[in-house]
Amino acid sequence: MTGGSWIAIDAMGGDKGLEVMLAGVAAARRRMEGQRFLLVGDEAQIRAGLERHPNLSAASEIVHAPEIVASEEKPSAAIRRARTTSMGIAIDLVKQGRAAAALSSGNTGALMAMAKLALRTMPSIDRPALGALMPSLGETDTVMLDLGANAECTARNLVQFAVMGAAYARTALDLERPRVALLNIGTEELKGNDIVREAAQLLRGASHLPLDFRGYIEGDRLSRGEIDVVVCDGFTGNIALKTAEGTARFVADLLRRAFQSSIRSKIGFLISRPATDLLRHHLDPNNHNGAVFLGLNGLVVKSHGGANEVGVATAIGLAAKMVREDLANRIAEDLSNFEAKAA
Amino acid sequence: MTGGSWIAIDAMGGDKGLEVMLAGVAAARRRMEGQRFLLVGDEAQIRAGLERHPNLSAASEIVHAPEIVASEEKPSAAIRRARTTSMGIAIDLVKQGRAAAALSSGNTGALMAMAKLALRTMPSIDRPALGALMPSLGETDTVMLDLGANAECTARNLVQFAVMGAAYARTALDLERPRVALLNIGTEELKGNDIVREAAQLLRGASHLPLDFRGYIEGDRLSRGEIDVVVCDGFTGNIALKTAEGTARFVADLLRRAFQSSIRSKIGFLISRPATDLLRHHLDPNNHNGAVFLGLNGLVVKSHGGANEVGVATAIGLAAKMVREDLANRIAEDLSNFEAKAA
Repeated sequence: MTGGSWIAIDAMGGDKGLEVMLAGVAAARRRMEGQRFLLVGDEAQIRAGLERHPNLSAASEIVHAPEIVASEEKPSAAIRRARTTSMGIAIDLVKQGRAAAALSSGNTGALMAMAKLALRTMPSIDRPALGALMPSLGETDTVMLDLGANAECTARNLVQFAVMGAAYARTALDLERPRVALLNIGTEELKGNDIVREAAQLLRGASHLPLDFRGYIEGDRLSRGEIDVVVCDGFTGNIALKTAEGTARFVADLLRRAFQSSIRSKIGFLISRPATDLLRHHLDPNNHNGAVFLGLNGLVVKSHGGANEVGVATAIGLAAKMVREDLANRIAEDLSNFEAKAA
Repeated sequence: MTGGSWIAIDAMGGDKGLEVMLAGVAAARRRMEGQRFLLVGDEAQIRAGLERHPNLSAASEIVHAPEIVASEEKPSAAIRRARTTSMGIAIDLVKQGRAAAALSSGNTGALMAMAKLALRTMPSIDRPALGALMPSLGETDTVMLDLGANAECTARNLVQFAVMGAAYARTALDLERPRVALLNIGTEELKGNDIVREAAQLLRGASHLPLDFRGYIEGDRLSRGEIDVVVCDGFTGNIALKTAEGTARFVADLLRRAFQSSIRSKIGFLISRPATDLLRHHLDPNNHNGAVFLGLNGLVVKSHGGANEVGVATAIGLAAKMVREDLANRIAEDLSNFEAKAA
């Protein structure tokens, strides 16, 4: 950990409120000696909340913000209140260079819009993308992007997402040469639409980059752990991610119903509880928390709205790691190598 | 059951071969008095196989086909062998009017291409779509379409899919006025891309049709049973369907691992076996088998390649029901009502 780095925390965002955010930051703080935090939000409330976390108190400063972005607020409305909301001010601290990263559990659309407007897109990137970690059967999670920042994409956008996603996987998952694939409706070369096919062709020429392009991946193989970075447009990615979340919940609901269907099953459930707890642990979004806006001049991490203390701490750990390993410069370097060869 | 209807069966298609196909047809036959079958494939093999199914023997005729479409064969290659393959001949029997529907467990791409070429698209439809049933927490399955017939779609295509999907849901699920929604990346009016938004606007004007348009649905709600017909382009639908299948398998794999993680868990598993069997039954694709090409001049049903006897019988039951309830005419009627009001 570089001693002096600060992370700005939108202490007011998220469905579970200030208390959980502070507990999460305090938990992250215990793991990261030297990490310091700018806690953004209502000063009186934060001060009161910090009484329970003396350790965090010593490692943080409060930055007052009089307002909060509502969870259902339209991005266009939130942008107009960027100077007074905890979310807007947390991002602004990154822009000013006072924080190395900002983290919020609040409204995703508003966070994306505000971050893009305040921090601007990196010179070598056409469009920023939202990337996140999904659980898999493999040894590490799988990175997936874009998850909704861009409903429509060009082949060039997808190639840049691949480069950014690979840099993210190298940092977040400690992989040297992540396996990258484009999400498609078949694995043969001619499948899909023109944009995906053109992106594949461009990526096949990128063997000098620190990524291993593996062609296409279909939806049914996303969780198999065979690919580290799954690349797609934001429309497809959002639907795939949410379908995966919904299906996992659906199966869990069916399982719960099934276990409650008879006394015998209830007993079996109690006995095998450690097993189902293990399953729950593996699927718990709090253990895969931390979506990242890639491609901006500054690091912004989105924590799940419903994240608990563990989830918030996970996302903060991820943010700190990306700061430490200088993710932004890695991306810039990879892209300039890619462009140099393409030219 | 109308006494005289015939269903053509591609007896050679599917991963599990002739034996399972015949067992499935025989099972369907036991449930449907008067239903007759044209069994298409190698005559000698079918004749030998029928010895185990005297009841089916009496209700079927064999139509010899010397060749088989391979599971990995390209549609363009399969089309050239339409006159000699069991799949091609089964479809041709529908074209000739000798069968009211054709069913195959073979290569989906080849089946789509051959069916489209032989049967042609209905006059009121621009593009046929592949629809299927997905399990849900609701009282019935959920219809989803398109699942891959059209990688790119216009708003008009999506509207026609909605009308066809609703007619399919009325027939297959016995719903009077199915709830229809467009798959999108948010539920607010301005979410998504232009095509989805335009389709929504057109469907909002379709209140005279026997469908209840509910706007948008996101991926995480697909299995909740709140919507009966989910409409999307074939790229998105294919990815959502396969992601759902893959995620269900992923969770089942994790559960299996968890149950095997300790002796205690193994014992708990044995005791709660009826519960996990119930879960398996609910998710078993064989109980939701039967994808349908909607919008052709003739009925073609795709059974899962890996379907067992129960799955094949389920899909045949669905085909017979659509014949009986005259799905094609329902679609034509709904569309002409829609166009009449729009004009």
